[in-house]
Amino acid sequence: MNERRINSVMEAMKAQNLTQMLVTDSYAIDYLTGEMIQPGERFTALLLKTDGTVRLFLNRLFAAEKIPQEQIVFYTDEVRGAVLAAEYTDSDKMLGVDKKMAAEFLLELQEHHAGSSYMNASVLVDSVRAKKDEEEQKLMEIASQINDRSMLQIKQLVKEGVTEKELSDELLKIYLKEGAEGFSFDAIVSFGEHAADPHHEPDDTVVKEGDCVLFDIGCRKDGYCSDMTRTFFFKSAGEKQREIYEIVRRANAAGEAAIRPGARFCDIDAAARKVIEDAGYGPYFTHRLGHSIGKEVHEYGDVGMVNTNTVEEGMVFSCEPGIYLPGEFGVRIEDLCMVTKDGVKVLNSVSKELEIL
Amino acid sequence: MNERRINSVMEAMKAQNLTQMLVTDSYAIDYLTGEMIQPGERFTALLLKTDGTVRLFLNRLFAAEKIPQEQIVFYTDEVRGAVLAAEYTDSDKMLGVDKKMAAEFLLELQEHHAGSSYMNASVLVDSVRAKKDEEEQKLMEIASQINDRSMLQIKQLVKEGVTEKELSDELLKIYLKEGAEGFSFDAIVSFGEHAADPHHEPDDTVVKEGDCVLFDIGCRKDGYCSDMTRTFFFKSAGEKQREIYEIVRRANAAGEAAIRPGARFCDIDAAARKVIEDAGYGPYFTHRLGHSIGKEVHEYGDVGMVNTNTVEEGMVFSCEPGIYLPGEFGVRIEDLCMVTKDGVKVLNSVSKELEIL
Repeated sequence: MNERRINSVMEAMKAQNLTQMLVTDSYAIDYLTGEMIQPGERFTALLLKTDGTVRLFLNRLFAAEKIPQEQIVFYTDEVRGAVLAAEYTDSDKMLGVDKKMAAEFLLELQEHHAGSSYMNASVLVDSVRAKKDEEEQKLMEIASQINDRSMLQIKQLVKEGVTEKELSDELLKIYLKEGAEGFSFDAIVSFGEHAADPHHEPDDTVVKEGDCVLFDIGCRKDGYCSDMTRTFFFKSAGEKQREIYEIVRRANAAGEAAIRPGARFCDIDAAARKVIEDAGYGPYFTHRLGHSIGKEVHEYGDVGMVNTNTVEEGMVFSCEPGIYLPGEFGVRIEDLCMVTKDGVKVLNSVSKELEIL
Repeated sequence: MNERRINSVMEAMKAQNLTQMLVTDSYAIDYLTGEMIQPGERFTALLLKTDGTVRLFLNRLFAAEKIPQEQIVFYTDEVRGAVLAAEYTDSDKMLGVDKKMAAEFLLELQEHHAGSSYMNASVLVDSVRAKKDEEEQKLMEIASQINDRSMLQIKQLVKEGVTEKELSDELLKIYLKEGAEGFSFDAIVSFGEHAADPHHEPDDTVVKEGDCVLFDIGCRKDGYCSDMTRTFFFKSAGEKQREIYEIVRRANAAGEAAIRPGARFCDIDAAARKVIEDAGYGPYFTHRLGHSIGKEVHEYGDVGMVNTNTVEEGMVFSCEPGIYLPGEFGVRIEDLCMVTKDGVKVLNSVSKELEIL
C-alpha cells in the first residue's frame, strides 16, 4: 500500500467534498497499492473514504499479496462484487466512480443504493498520478535511458534491403536485451511517404535512398513507459527534407524551452506550434504537441491547444511536433520532458541534429 | 447494415418491453452493421429503437462507410457524444445500455435524462449473436479448418531443444501463411508440469523426453475465431499419463455426445465432468467445460455447471475437459462444437488418439 499516494487522493477528494469513491482502473489500483491485478470481466475495486477507510473488493480467484489481507473483501462467483461493495459504501452520500467502470457495475451499485448520487471522479486519481514522485521519476528516467540506448542501436540496422517490419522486430529484441519488459506501444517505423501518416504500422516496405526513416518507439521498464521519436534520412536528404527537419527541430526546442512550473499546457503547445505556423506549415502539424505518460503511455494531461491547466513539478509528458506532407514524407521529433522545480529535464539524450544513415 | 440481425435484436427488445437501447461494444456494432470501429476512448454507440430507428453516433475522426451516411450522427471533439445521443432517445422510457459501456458515458446519459431508467441489456444482443447464421457458420468452419492444418504443422516442430516460446512464434508464422489474420488469443504451449496450469504462458523451457506437450491454440480468419487443444507426448508416455489421457479423451467425447438442440449447457458440462469424477479426478478438473465463441474468443454462453439455458441450432462453443496434476503434468482436449438441427458438428478433425511425437 502506498499511504502517501492514497492520502493525496483523499486530500483531492476532500477538496471536492467527495467522501467516498470506487477505483476500478487496474493501473490506478496498482499505483495506489503496488498490486497489479488483471481481473478480466470480474468486479475489482478499491474503496477509498476520506475517513481513512481503504478496502479492496476482489474475486477469490485472484490474489493481492501486497495488500494487507484484512483490507481485502473477497467474494466468490456466486456473489455480485458490486452488490457486495454497496454494503460498504454510504448510501446517503455521493459516490465517485472511475470513468471506465463498466456500466453493469455502475447499474448494480445504483440499484443497491451504494450512494445518493454518482460522479465521474477519475480526475482525482489522475491528477495525483500526473505528478510523478521521486521513485517514479527515477523509473521514468531509467525507461528513457533504455530507449536512448535502443535508438542508437536500431538506427545502426538501417541498411540496404531492410524492411520496416524487420526493424520493428529487431527493436523488440534490443529492448529485451536491455532489460525492458517489452514495447510500451507498438513501434512506429516509417520509411519515406509512410512517415506522413503519424500512426503508420510497420510493413514489408524496403528502405530506399532518400527516404526519411522515422522511429517512434518506447519500452516499458519496471512498469513505466518511455516514448521517443527521431527521424533520420537514408543515404541522402533533399533540400526540402532538410528545411522541414530544421523547422521541426526548432519547434521541438521551442516547446521544451517553454516548460516550467506554472506554464499552461496550451502555452507549451503554442510555443512549438508557432514555429511551424510561422514557417507556413501549420496545416501539416495535425495533432496535439504531446501527452502525459507514466504507467500508461497516454495518461491524463494533454499537451494541446485546449488544455489550460498549468504544469507542475514532477509531471512527465512528450513534446513531439511533426510536419506531415502526404505522398512525400514526414518528420517528427519527440522527447519526454519532466517538469523540475524551475524548468525542465529532458529525459532523452539522443542527438537531434540531422543525420544521414 | 445487417437488417436481419438488427431485426432479431429488436424482436428480443420487444419481448423484454424495452423500446430503446444503445450498443457500444465494438464487436456488437460490427455484428449488426458490418463496420468494425475502434474509437478508443471516444463515445461510439448504435441507437436501436423498436420503432425501427437505427442511428450511429460517431466522432468525425472516424469513418463508417458501410453504414448509410444519413443514419450516422457525427460529432466533433467540442461536443460530448453521449450528451448528443441523449437528444435522440426517449427520456420517458427505459434505456438499455451495454454491460461494458464506460461509466462516464452512462453518467452523462443519466444527467441528461436520456431515459426514465437504465438497464444492462447486453444479453439481448449477445443471445442473438450466440446463434450463428449461415454465413457465420461457414466462417467458423473455415477458421477451424485453418486451425486443424496449423496443429498438424506445429506438432511436427516439436523436437530436441525446442522451447515453448519458439513453438508459439512459429505457430504465428504458420497461421499467417495459412491466411489467418493472426492469433485469436495468445497461444498456450505447455511442456510437462507447465501443462498443469491451464493458462501457462509459453517461456524458454526446453522440451524433454516424457513431457506432455499441450497446444491450446486458435486463429482469427475474416473476423471469426478458432480454438482447439491437443495434448501430445514427447518421445514417451508413462502409464499415469496414458491413463489420464484416456479419461480426458472419454470426457471430451461424452461432452460432445450430449450436444443437441434442447440440451442444457449444464447437462453438457455434467456429461463430461461425470467421466472425470467417476475416474476419481474430479478435483483436478478445475474449470467449466467450455465457452461460446464467434467474433470474440469468449462470448456469452458458458458451458458450465450453473448455466441452465438450453442450446440451440447455430450455437458454437468449446468442449474442453482437462485434468491438471500440479507438479506433474496436465492434459486437455478441446474441440469447437456447432449445434446442428439434430445434434452437433465438431469443427475440428485433428485426431484425438494418444500420440507420441
